[in-house]
Amino acid sequence: MAVYTDITDAELEAFLSAFDLGAPQVFKGIAEGIQNSNFLLETERGRYILTIYERGVKAEELPYFLNLLQWLAQHGFPSALPVADRKGALLSQLRGKPAAIVGFLPGLSVRRPTIDHCREAGEGLAWLHQAGQGYPGHRVNDLGQSAWAGLFAPLKAAAEGFKPGLAATILSDLDVLERSWPRDLPTGVIHADLFPDNVFFRDGEFAAAIDFYFACDDLYAYDLAICLNAWCFEADGTFNVTAAQAMIAGYEKRRPLSAAERSALSILSWGAAMRFFLSRLADWGMGSEGSIVNHKDPMEYERKLAVHRAAHQDGGLILLGAPVA
Amino acid sequence: MAVYTDITDAELEAFLSAFDLGAPQVFKGIAEGIQNSNFLLETERGRYILTIYERGVKAEELPYFLNLLQWLAQHGFPSALPVADRKGALLSQLRGKPAAIVGFLPGLSVRRPTIDHCREAGEGLAWLHQAGQGYPGHRVNDLGQSAWAGLFAPLKAAAEGFKPGLAATILSDLDVLERSWPRDLPTGVIHADLFPDNVFFRDGEFAAAIDFYFACDDLYAYDLAICLNAWCFEADGTFNVTAAQAMIAGYEKRRPLSAAERSALSILSWGAAMRFFLSRLADWGMGSEGSIVNHKDPMEYERKLAVHRAAHQDGGLILLGAPVA
Repeated sequence: MAVYTDITDAELEAFLSAFDLGAPQVFKGIAEGIQNSNFLLETERGRYILTIYERGVKAEELPYFLNLLQWLAQHGFPSALPVADRKGALLSQLRGKPAAIVGFLPGLSVRRPTIDHCREAGEGLAWLHQAGQGYPGHRVNDLGQSAWAGLFAPLKAAAEGFKPGLAATILSDLDVLERSWPRDLPTGVIHADLFPDNVFFRDGEFAAAIDFYFACDDLYAYDLAICLNAWCFEADGTFNVTAAQAMIAGYEKRRPLSAAERSALSILSWGAAMRFFLSRLADWGMGSEGSIVNHKDPMEYERKLAVHRAAHQDGGLILLGAPVA
Repeated sequence: MAVYTDITDAELEAFLSAFDLGAPQVFKGIAEGIQNSNFLLETERGRYILTIYERGVKAEELPYFLNLLQWLAQHGFPSALPVADRKGALLSQLRGKPAAIVGFLPGLSVRRPTIDHCREAGEGLAWLHQAGQGYPGHRVNDLGQSAWAGLFAPLKAAAEGFKPGLAATILSDLDVLERSWPRDLPTGVIHADLFPDNVFFRDGEFAAAIDFYFACDDLYAYDLAICLNAWCFEADGTFNVTAAQAMIAGYEKRRPLSAAERSALSILSWGAAMRFFLSRLADWGMGSEGSIVNHKDPMEYERKLAVHRAAHQDGGLILLGAPVA
């Protein structure tokens, strides 16, 4: 659920006076996004989402994200188009916080994706990768593979608190990942957080992607691996290979994977599970005054780690339809 | 901010299958109302608010409220029209909780009403009173004058905790209110909670009233007194007589007050301040698991009580443009 900054009608009016959007007709706080306050805004001109960036977002990184949204929308990808104010700026201030207006995207996210949803999401991800090509902005993935050991260092006790012995297992994983991580696969702009709640569908088809605030430069296949973890595990913790194959097939409709990318999907998925395990472990128990953030269970990703670890120890299971190593 | 029940796409689809509204296209939790979970719902047919009634609402009273909304909308008042399912029912169930769909109302509430807003709100209140005439449903005001002494009995220590000596002052107030309360003024359906956040404006004009979940049978002039307290005090705690006169004038555009109603506005406003002081005092510190309710400060209404008490002790100040008693 959203963190929430309360905005008065007078503040809204003052804010909108810098834009050519006409008078506001509807303004409602909506529960969308974890890190920011989001509002449905309707004016004489149309429907928008107004986002106020709360702490947790680095203000100096916002131009990268907003320019990326603009780039993607201008290159045909269904992401929210930022609205510039009369001076041409995409980023404004409201209540002393960074704020932006983007176009409203209709569509519904799904809680339990079907095989068809996985295929559609895979195709949507490849579309995003293609549309992002040539984007001049750059952002290092500060939650990428090279950051994981450093992220885990202060979290060993927390891991042990969840499960005795887990710290040693994670350290061993990190060692394998460091040694096996692919370094020369195709890279570009990745979403890096394309979970089901960040994808909208209409009539069963991929309709839009939202929440680009982890976007960065990294391996395209790693972005697909993040999605395989996020979309293709069953509620009982088992990995649905059929869903994964559908997602990969959907991806390849738009951007065929190289043999090296396919072979790497197993280790990339293991690493992607590590990334979300580590960030959830770091967030766990971190409250935020006056806000509601439903912290996600790190152990969900610990179980995904275990699935990938076991597959690896089996000498290269055909987990993802990839050729046996 | 709203309490929040999380609804999946599958649950929504199952719920909507009982209605003739077509497929959902947008579904977002919105921050509106204190007691319930509200969602913006768009389907092929139009835009709606889906409300899930959380604890705090008595399920057996919901037909009174929903039928009232229907009655008011059918009698031309701009309130949200409930949508019946295929069997004609206005009240459904979602996640085992009572739920209803009503039409979406555009418009913005104001935080700091101007004199013009007060006039418009007064006229809107009279419109509501007129439109409600003949409504066959009835509901006793369980927060009405006869309930206050009983409400306060368990709250004396809480009042003393806020301000030593306050309990005796409140008991004295309750005694005066009991002896002076008017009993034979015109009655009918009142909103009983028409605070600024429950009124929408468009282009400066009254556009809609929402949140009817305190509606009941009581004195029309008492409803106006509730509004005088809610709309006509300045942030510094002073009563703006100009705003009050504008509100009364707006009200009288549609429903002129009798001399008895006018004379009673002072004591009714004192009583209306008591009602909100008591309910806020009772709510203060009452947390609700897994929900966010911003409890409102009882002392805001303690200060309003003091204003009305002083006016009364001055022998009948011309506080509300009413004739001197």
